[in-house]
Amino acid sequence: KVIWTVFLTILGYASSLPVGDDSLCTAEQLAKYKIIFTGKWSQIAFPKQYPLYRPPAQWSSLLGVTHSSDYSMWKKNEYASNGVRDFAEKGEAWVLMKEIEEAGEKIQSVHGIFSAPAIPSGTGQTSTELEAHPRHPLVSFVVRIVPSPDWFVGIDSLNLCEGDHWMDEVSVDLFPYDAGTDSGFTFSSPNFATIPQDTVTEITCSSPSHPANSFYYPKLKILPPIAQVTMVKIKKSQPGLSAPFINLPAKSNEIIDSVS
Amino acid sequence: KVIWTVFLTILGYASSLPVGDDSLCTAEQLAKYKIIFTGKWSQIAFPKQYPLYRPPAQWSSLLGVTHSSDYSMWKKNEYASNGVRDFAEKGEAWVLMKEIEEAGEKIQSVHGIFSAPAIPSGTGQTSTELEAHPRHPLVSFVVRIVPSPDWFVGIDSLNLCEGDHWMDEVSVDLFPYDAGTDSGFTFSSPNFATIPQDTVTEITCSSPSHPANSFYYPKLKILPPIAQVTMVKIKKSQPGLSAPFINLPAKSNEIIDSVS
Repeated sequence: KVIWTVFLTILGYASSLPVGDDSLCTAEQLAKYKIIFTGKWSQIAFPKQYPLYRPPAQWSSLLGVTHSSDYSMWKKNEYASNGVRDFAEKGEAWVLMKEIEEAGEKIQSVHGIFSAPAIPSGTGQTSTELEAHPRHPLVSFVVRIVPSPDWFVGIDSLNLCEGDHWMDEVSVDLFPYDAGTDSGFTFSSPNFATIPQDTVTEITCSSPSHPANSFYYPKLKILPPIAQVTMVKIKKSQPGLSAPFINLPAKSNEIIDSVS
Repeated sequence: KVIWTVFLTILGYASSLPVGDDSLCTAEQLAKYKIIFTGKWSQIAFPKQYPLYRPPAQWSSLLGVTHSSDYSMWKKNEYASNGVRDFAEKGEAWVLMKEIEEAGEKIQSVHGIFSAPAIPSGTGQTSTELEAHPRHPLVSFVVRIVPSPDWFVGIDSLNLCEGDHWMDEVSVDLFPYDAGTDSGFTFSSPNFATIPQDTVTEITCSSPSHPANSFYYPKLKILPPIAQVTMVKIKKSQPGLSAPFINLPAKSNEIIDSVS
């Protein structure tokens, strides 16, 4: 059996632009996926201002949604919703969950919501399952970078459907984004609202172009991925168990950090 | 239609002992529930040593499981598993997820795992959905109290099935537990392993009986509930949407704290 593995590592592409269009999905009814998020925010890969105390580098809960192209959780170069602002700034998920719920009720553009537990360190893993529908084959999610002013990683509208079939496996490198709502430059900057609100922008090793920026590494061409996400289709022949019980990778503290 | 609402507020009962036996469930195939967790850890209700900074009072992600009586996530007066220890001490969910996964694979005692986003304040709400099965009608979950040595709230083996039907709504008050793995007395105690490990115990206003204990209120008879959980069965007639899109309560910052 052919395993479809799509590695979308072109800088910023997969995590900022819709990777497909949901209009052509003619796949079988529903698909369940295991989603595994891996934090790669190590002091080795990101030595500058690496947060060690109160709080140390870590990841918030993951909050995601499967949806149609009529819904957008967040999008590069557009303004963040109030829900995404609350989540990116404070890790507060409630308003974002309500926004998703309303999109589901009013325009039926949402199939389901999913979340995975927080990771209390910069490197480590968390996972959950998600369900996609032929009319709602797109996946979006956000994970807040903690501590940070309003920085997050995520996926915007990744299409799990390829014509008449669901992809077996998708892996995407993730890079930091600024929600455009807080003007702090560094991980531990005090709260400082951006007025008027700016759009969502990718943070690179050269932008914002200011030495105080925590991700400013003028000698690098690109940042190493700060996280990675893998979605693996769950086969229906799993014996008697619901979705989460596919093979999990090694323990989170066995992850080897790679410096690009 | 009769609405079955069970309020199990007898101190410590619902959240520490199996509330039912899963051997007699003859209900229809599957049941989906919306689960809403409400933090009630306010400075008004719990003034002593209330954590205001680095970190302020908050709740970890919620991690839960639906299962049969062959599996136990945690139990009062028994030893916590390594997974529950990691989660209660650090909010690290990985080992606990692996334990649940193994219970699912080896003895098929688990139906599904679920999680809900963290709440970045002592009061507030989070929610997700869960699925129960007639052979796996019990719900257990844990939420870490942050900051704390190894304290958590949760439910142990609550039976959602009543004979041939699923309960429509269940609400349970939650009280703090000590995982028995860290000997700190106060919210911000430094890490201090309990060797040998102690069993899981309920923390009350008089036990541990020491004035330094953050929950020691000698003038109270019982602590006010520090949190509450509500599970509401999702009707299958919801229009075209999967489970999470049932009515959510008011915004989290509109919660009124009540002092018992």
